[in-house]
Amino acid sequence: MVRIGIDACSNDNGKQIFIDAAYKYVSKNSDVKIYLYSDENILVNEKFINQIEVVKCEDRIAVEEHPVFSLRTKKKSSLYLAGNDLNDNKIDVLISAGSTGAVLALGQLYIKTLENVKRPAIATVIPTETCKTIVIDSGANMDPEPEWLVQYAILGSIYYEEMFSKKPRVGLLNVGVEKTKGNKLTTEVYELLSKVDKINFVGNIEARDVPKGVCDVLVCDGFSGNVLLKMYEGTAKSLLSIIKNIFKKSIINLMCAAVLKSSFKSVLKEYDAREYGGAILIGTRKLIIKCHGNAKSNEIYVALSQAYDFVKKDINKKFKDIGGNYGI
Amino acid sequence: MVRIGIDACSNDNGKQIFIDAAYKYVSKNSDVKIYLYSDENILVNEKFINQIEVVKCEDRIAVEEHPVFSLRTKKKSSLYLAGNDLNDNKIDVLISAGSTGAVLALGQLYIKTLENVKRPAIATVIPTETCKTIVIDSGANMDPEPEWLVQYAILGSIYYEEMFSKKPRVGLLNVGVEKTKGNKLTTEVYELLSKVDKINFVGNIEARDVPKGVCDVLVCDGFSGNVLLKMYEGTAKSLLSIIKNIFKKSIINLMCAAVLKSSFKSVLKEYDAREYGGAILIGTRKLIIKCHGNAKSNEIYVALSQAYDFVKKDINKKFKDIGGNYGI
Repeated sequence: MVRIGIDACSNDNGKQIFIDAAYKYVSKNSDVKIYLYSDENILVNEKFINQIEVVKCEDRIAVEEHPVFSLRTKKKSSLYLAGNDLNDNKIDVLISAGSTGAVLALGQLYIKTLENVKRPAIATVIPTETCKTIVIDSGANMDPEPEWLVQYAILGSIYYEEMFSKKPRVGLLNVGVEKTKGNKLTTEVYELLSKVDKINFVGNIEARDVPKGVCDVLVCDGFSGNVLLKMYEGTAKSLLSIIKNIFKKSIINLMCAAVLKSSFKSVLKEYDAREYGGAILIGTRKLIIKCHGNAKSNEIYVALSQAYDFVKKDINKKFKDIGGNYGI
Repeated sequence: MVRIGIDACSNDNGKQIFIDAAYKYVSKNSDVKIYLYSDENILVNEKFINQIEVVKCEDRIAVEEHPVFSLRTKKKSSLYLAGNDLNDNKIDVLISAGSTGAVLALGQLYIKTLENVKRPAIATVIPTETCKTIVIDSGANMDPEPEWLVQYAILGSIYYEEMFSKKPRVGLLNVGVEKTKGNKLTTEVYELLSKVDKINFVGNIEARDVPKGVCDVLVCDGFSGNVLLKMYEGTAKSLLSIIKNIFKKSIINLMCAAVLKSSFKSVLKEYDAREYGGAILIGTRKLIIKCHGNAKSNEIYVALSQAYDFVKKDINKKFKDIGGNYGI
C-alpha cells in the first residue's frame, strides 16, 4: 500500500481542495493511504476513514516566510512534520502546494539527495502542440554547474521513459541551434551532453520552438527555465484575455463565441496546468511533488496519481540503478 | 539631411523588400537620403534618384558564416562596407536584416561603444496588453557583469523617454518579486539598481507579468532576454495555429471565423513584430538597427522611421550627456 502525505496547510484555496481530492482518489484506488497534515481539525467522512488519516500539526509555513529559517524554527509545522515522516519512512511520498522555497529547502536540507546526485531539480510537465515536455530545472538551482545539467538530462530522461514508456528526445534550451551558441554554461553543457551516448540528445532548442513540441525533456538552468515557463503561462493568459475581449465586442461576436465555446474548452483543457498535476523534485531520496499555490482539487488529484505511480514504479530505484551507469 | 544606410544583401526575402521600403519612405520624407549596399545591380526608379543611391558591393555575409571571421575576411561585403561608411561618417545610421552575430560583431569591434559604455546591448520593443516594453538586452551579451545591466537600465530609460516622451518604469527580469530572489547576477543588479535614484526602478518582474505590460523597460541578461522574446513569439504563434484549427473544424466554425476575422486582424496587427521595426544596438558610437531575417518591406519601412528619429533627436548625444550624470 502506497502511503502519500499531503501538506494540507499549504494552499491559497484552503484545505477543502485536499480533502476533496483525497476522497475522490481513495474511492478509485484502494491501494493507497493518505495522510493529511493539517493545523486545523478535519473530520474525515466515515466512508474513507480507513484510507485517510489526519495528522494534527500546530503550525504552518506561509509563502512569504524565509524558507530555511522557517523550516529550522517551525518544527511543528505541517511541512516539517510531513518531511520528518518522509525521512522516517512513515510515508512514501509528499505533496505540497506551499512555498516553493520551503519545499526545496526541505528536499535539499532534510530529505537530501540520492547518492551522487549533486542537486535536486524541479521537473515540470508542460503541454505542447504535439507532446508533453518535461522542463528540468524549472526553478530549483539558479546558478548551476554544467555537470548538474547533465544530471538533469539523465534523471529527466529516465523519468520520462518510465512515465511515458518512450525514449525521450533531450534538448538543451539555448539562444540558437548551433553548438557554439549560448552562454558559458550552455556551451559547456552542450559538449558534455554530446558525450553521454545513452541519452537521445537532439541538440540546442530555441524557446520559440518549445511550444511546437520539438523535444520531450528540455534541460536548462533554473533561472531561464523559470522565465520560460512563466512566459508560456503569461503569454497564453494574455492572448486568451484578448480573445475574450474580441468575443465581447459585439452581439454577433458573442453569438460566434457561443458556437465556438465547446471547441475552445476542449483545447484549453489540454493546456490547463491543473491537468498535469504538480512539479516534481527530482533527485531527492524521497519524492516530493510541488503543486501550484492556487491549485484546485483536480490538480491535487492528478498529483496523487503521479505520486502513486512514482512509488509503484520505484522510480527512485531506477534513478539509482540506471543513473549508476552514467556515473550518478 | 539624415543619411541612412541599408545592408540590402541581408534578407531572406531578397533585396526587393528594401527597395520597396526605401521608395515608400522617401516619398513621405524629403529630409532623408538612403544608401542601398548591394552585391546585385539595383536600378533605382528615376523619381527617387535624388534620395536613393546604390553602393555596389562585391560580397555579402551569410547568416550561417562565423560573424567575426567573416567580417575580418570579407572586406568587400555589404555589411563591412556599410560599417566602414558609418565609421567614416558617410552615413548616420545603418539598417541590416542579416546575421545578428555579424551585426553585433560590427558594432562591438568596428563601430565600438560610446565612451564609458561597457558593452552595446540589443533593445527590442515588444507589444503588451497595456504598453510597449523595451527588452534590453535581448541577445547581445550572454554572460554580462552586473554593472552592464545597470548601464542597460540607464540607456534604455533615456531611449524610452526620448522616443515615447514618458519616464519609463524600469523592471528587472527575475523569478520572483522579492529582492532576494534570483541568481547571483540579478540579486547583485537589484542592489545596484536600487541605488540609481534617477531612474524609476520598479523592482523585479516575473516573466508571467511581462505580457500584461507591468514595466516599460525590462532589464535582463542576453540569454534570458532571448528566451523570453522567443517564448513570447513561439507561444503566440502556437496558440494562433491552434485557434486556426478550431476555426477549420466545422462549417459553422468557419462561418464564425469569417465574422470574427476583422476583429482578430486588428488585434493581431498590434502584436505583429513588423509594426515595431527593428531591434536597436544601444551603446555603440553610431546607431545600428537589426531587423528580422525574414523581415518584410513594412518592417524595414518602420526601421527607417526609427533610424530617422534616432538621428534627428540625437539620442547618442543624450546617452552621453544624460548618461554622464550616472557615470556612463
